[in-house]
Amino acid sequence: MRIAVAQINTKVGDLQGNFNKILEYADKAKKAKADLVVFPELALSGYPPEDLLFNKEFIFQQCKYVSRLIREIKDIVVVLGYVQPRHERKPYNACTVFHNGEELAIHHKNHLPNYSVFDEKRYFDKGEGSGKGGFKYKGQSIVVNICEDIWLDHGICKIQNSYFEPDIMINISCSPYYASKIYEREDLLIKRAREYKTNIVYCNLIGGQDELVFDGGSMIINKNGRIEARSYQFVEDLLVHKIGTNHDAICTYEKTEEIYRALKLGLKDYVSKNGFQKVVLGMSGGIDSALVAKLAVDTLGKENVVCISMPSMYSSNETQSDAKLYSKELGVEFNTIPIENLFLKYLDELAPWFLNKEEDVTEENIQARIRGNIIMALSNKFGYMPLSTGNKSEVSVGYCTLYGDMSGGFNPIKDLYKTQVYELSKFVGVPESIINRPPSAELREDQKDEDSLPPYEVLDEILKKLMERNEAPKGELENKIAKMLRLSEYKRRQSCPGIKITKRSYGKDYRMPIVNGYHE
Amino acid sequence: MRIAVAQINTKVGDLQGNFNKILEYADKAKKAKADLVVFPELALSGYPPEDLLFNKEFIFQQCKYVSRLIREIKDIVVVLGYVQPRHERKPYNACTVFHNGEELAIHHKNHLPNYSVFDEKRYFDKGEGSGKGGFKYKGQSIVVNICEDIWLDHGICKIQNSYFEPDIMINISCSPYYASKIYEREDLLIKRAREYKTNIVYCNLIGGQDELVFDGGSMIINKNGRIEARSYQFVEDLLVHKIGTNHDAICTYEKTEEIYRALKLGLKDYVSKNGFQKVVLGMSGGIDSALVAKLAVDTLGKENVVCISMPSMYSSNETQSDAKLYSKELGVEFNTIPIENLFLKYLDELAPWFLNKEEDVTEENIQARIRGNIIMALSNKFGYMPLSTGNKSEVSVGYCTLYGDMSGGFNPIKDLYKTQVYELSKFVGVPESIINRPPSAELREDQKDEDSLPPYEVLDEILKKLMERNEAPKGELENKIAKMLRLSEYKRRQSCPGIKITKRSYGKDYRMPIVNGYHE
Repeated sequence: MRIAVAQINTKVGDLQGNFNKILEYADKAKKAKADLVVFPELALSGYPPEDLLFNKEFIFQQCKYVSRLIREIKDIVVVLGYVQPRHERKPYNACTVFHNGEELAIHHKNHLPNYSVFDEKRYFDKGEGSGKGGFKYKGQSIVVNICEDIWLDHGICKIQNSYFEPDIMINISCSPYYASKIYEREDLLIKRAREYKTNIVYCNLIGGQDELVFDGGSMIINKNGRIEARSYQFVEDLLVHKIGTNHDAICTYEKTEEIYRALKLGLKDYVSKNGFQKVVLGMSGGIDSALVAKLAVDTLGKENVVCISMPSMYSSNETQSDAKLYSKELGVEFNTIPIENLFLKYLDELAPWFLNKEEDVTEENIQARIRGNIIMALSNKFGYMPLSTGNKSEVSVGYCTLYGDMSGGFNPIKDLYKTQVYELSKFVGVPESIINRPPSAELREDQKDEDSLPPYEVLDEILKKLMERNEAPKGELENKIAKMLRLSEYKRRQSCPGIKITKRSYGKDYRMPIVNGYHE
Repeated sequence: MRIAVAQINTKVGDLQGNFNKILEYADKAKKAKADLVVFPELALSGYPPEDLLFNKEFIFQQCKYVSRLIREIKDIVVVLGYVQPRHERKPYNACTVFHNGEELAIHHKNHLPNYSVFDEKRYFDKGEGSGKGGFKYKGQSIVVNICEDIWLDHGICKIQNSYFEPDIMINISCSPYYASKIYEREDLLIKRAREYKTNIVYCNLIGGQDELVFDGGSMIINKNGRIEARSYQFVEDLLVHKIGTNHDAICTYEKTEEIYRALKLGLKDYVSKNGFQKVVLGMSGGIDSALVAKLAVDTLGKENVVCISMPSMYSSNETQSDAKLYSKELGVEFNTIPIENLFLKYLDELAPWFLNKEEDVTEENIQARIRGNIIMALSNKFGYMPLSTGNKSEVSVGYCTLYGDMSGGFNPIKDLYKTQVYELSKFVGVPESIINRPPSAELREDQKDEDSLPPYEVLDEILKKLMERNEAPKGELENKIAKMLRLSEYKRRQSCPGIKITKRSYGKDYRMPIVNGYHE
């Protein structure tokens, strides 16, 4: 049995585009003499379609495309995820198997994830029973299921396995990326293959969708738990494989490279799927904006990246020079728009109201917001997507200015801790003068991040404990950080989207109240 | 049987404060010679606690307070909602009944809402069975259940009713407000009372929590479906009532007044529960900011409201004069900070880059963002909470500037259509010169909203159809509006919280993808 796994990059809502891509990959699979081709979960709607699923017209249109696929694809078995509507009930998250116009099997996702970034119980009813997910083809017993279905130890897959005793189990997925998650998938699938004594075909989505990256990494595992074939992460691929042969290949990446590839895919898809070509960002000469500039160049090409230096009287010669030199090294358009005069003008206009008031964070924020205004003006005038460059450590404790440096359409490093920003910067070759300079917002004289914050190595470990693992703070420092985390929730609520990299990121997986009296 | 219904205003996370309030109201109920006192769903944690529920220490602390209540409250039966943790499983949303240190009954919420603004399946396991929710007291059979449990026609309540044949059914709720929802609750409870031939005691939360307002309106309905007693909406109350007597009172409001009271409660609680006293807003002389200023004065007192006029060369004498006169009429602090010089300075600094480019929306947005910067500077310097004033109609079609007029900690009218802004403005007596002037953003010469948008009466009906009811657009205008709605999602994602007034508001009840190729 020759299996083709179509690890495709769909776009949420783009029914026509996704339909075309499915036809194209079915055709490629036929040309590669595959008996069967597998597409990801909800391949027609894209994933996650979120509240588009409440739009009956959208579901209706999607069904028309499914019917067309069933009619138009000939001479190959197709395994396809789609939204199956029901009369006056929630739809099913379904997997259909068809061949020459005939449906061979249908499965409804039994286990609907409703944790982390997932809200599937908002949209779907759970499938009941398991009797229709299996079929025979060319003497093989095959069964299909969907994503979460295979993750539960005593779930539907176990029942399907007893009932159908399949030679091949096919799982179609949309499993979002976080760092090293591919190894969790590998471990699970190998365990299932051995437990069920069946070959497993795992098809995952690739592509960026808002805050999520789907990393692909589709694989075929034999009954003995050996990975016979696999697709690379982060690229579209048609994996064609005859079960029982061995294409064994290492298709995974060292951790830092894996993260960098996830960032590139997330950025590329957010920019291009939203119809943008060029990006603009404020280039301070600090490490965060340097990394984002490098990432943007590696992702979009130097001709599509515009870097703006916006120095004030607090900007040092060193950072200004680094901003300029590194931009030149990257080959991007680089412009300097000083904000000193604008800043003085604000102080002037506000002087009557600020009489006898000491300088404080207000004056710092005014500068950051002037920069935000300039970046947005360039975005408006030239149609660039503005990138913001705040890392997870800063944004966790509110060390950032709302409507200032937080301005932007997308923040590629939103879910990177500062320590990860350092690792990635070294990995991609950000200049040492930038990497080695003590971090500073440069919004007042001689300001250093470590005047207000503990060293980032310390801070990041505390944040992992409090934010990612939900553990209780212990001691003065941890309690102080917990309070900063709580009090800055209102800022994060207004932050732009960014790419999920850690197991728990801000956004859909961090639904904290703003009004919050716990440990006040 | 004398029943006390404690319609209290809790604060999410504030265990100590909520504990104190429960003690206080139990004491009041005893003084009023009640046999039994009822508190809302999740009274100790506040509602909705969201991801605080993943914090084991929080749940553990909450349980300690529950134990203290059970020990400390004597000589009255207490019905109380709380989070009941379980070993290595999700907790239950529970209702305990206790009396002099002894638990008389326990019920676990069976029907967990996971639609609209609700995510309860993210946090809780559903209760199974119904056998422990009933008890006898003073010869009466009483049964308890929780919120959604009573809304289903063939749910747990029906089973409880058959099993216990209760004289009194108590439902503890946290039912969030939208306009006229109280009548849906009334209809339902009357129907249930008649269907089950039982007296129903309905206890609802009051108070604002982020985007939600809980409006109270607790009530006691007899077996014949007559409302014997009720609490006013939007206020804390201890309703004490002997079942079988008649306190009948109309405690509901005409629709516009009801909405205004909801806005006041939502604004008051957001400001005070976040520890603020004063608010600041940009006062343009237009109807939106006039309504928000009036609302703020009615809610917080004129001494706590600061209005700022920030005219540019495009601001008309009429709007400037209205802003000043109405601020004076309201008795608030009113200051004028012109932005013309700042605006010219931005144009100056950007001139080299904007050479040969036509004026467009860029120049409009620069002005709006200067105003945002000034309002935020005043907020930072004086500790005012900044209010933003964009209505639902504008925000739906993107007729607003991100980081400009969208800046703010809270937007009280975020979920009011422009037509509702007019109704409320008339209701509260905003001056006719403000109400009757054709709406304009005044960001360029002779600009009128209706140059870019259809009349608001038309727009609002289309938005209700597309956004609230998820219906498909028909015809050119509706398709144009649908596109504007889709393309402005990225702005709304970064908007500040505001008060839910309609059945479907932006925020938790509108989870639309930004990357969205549907009908592109």
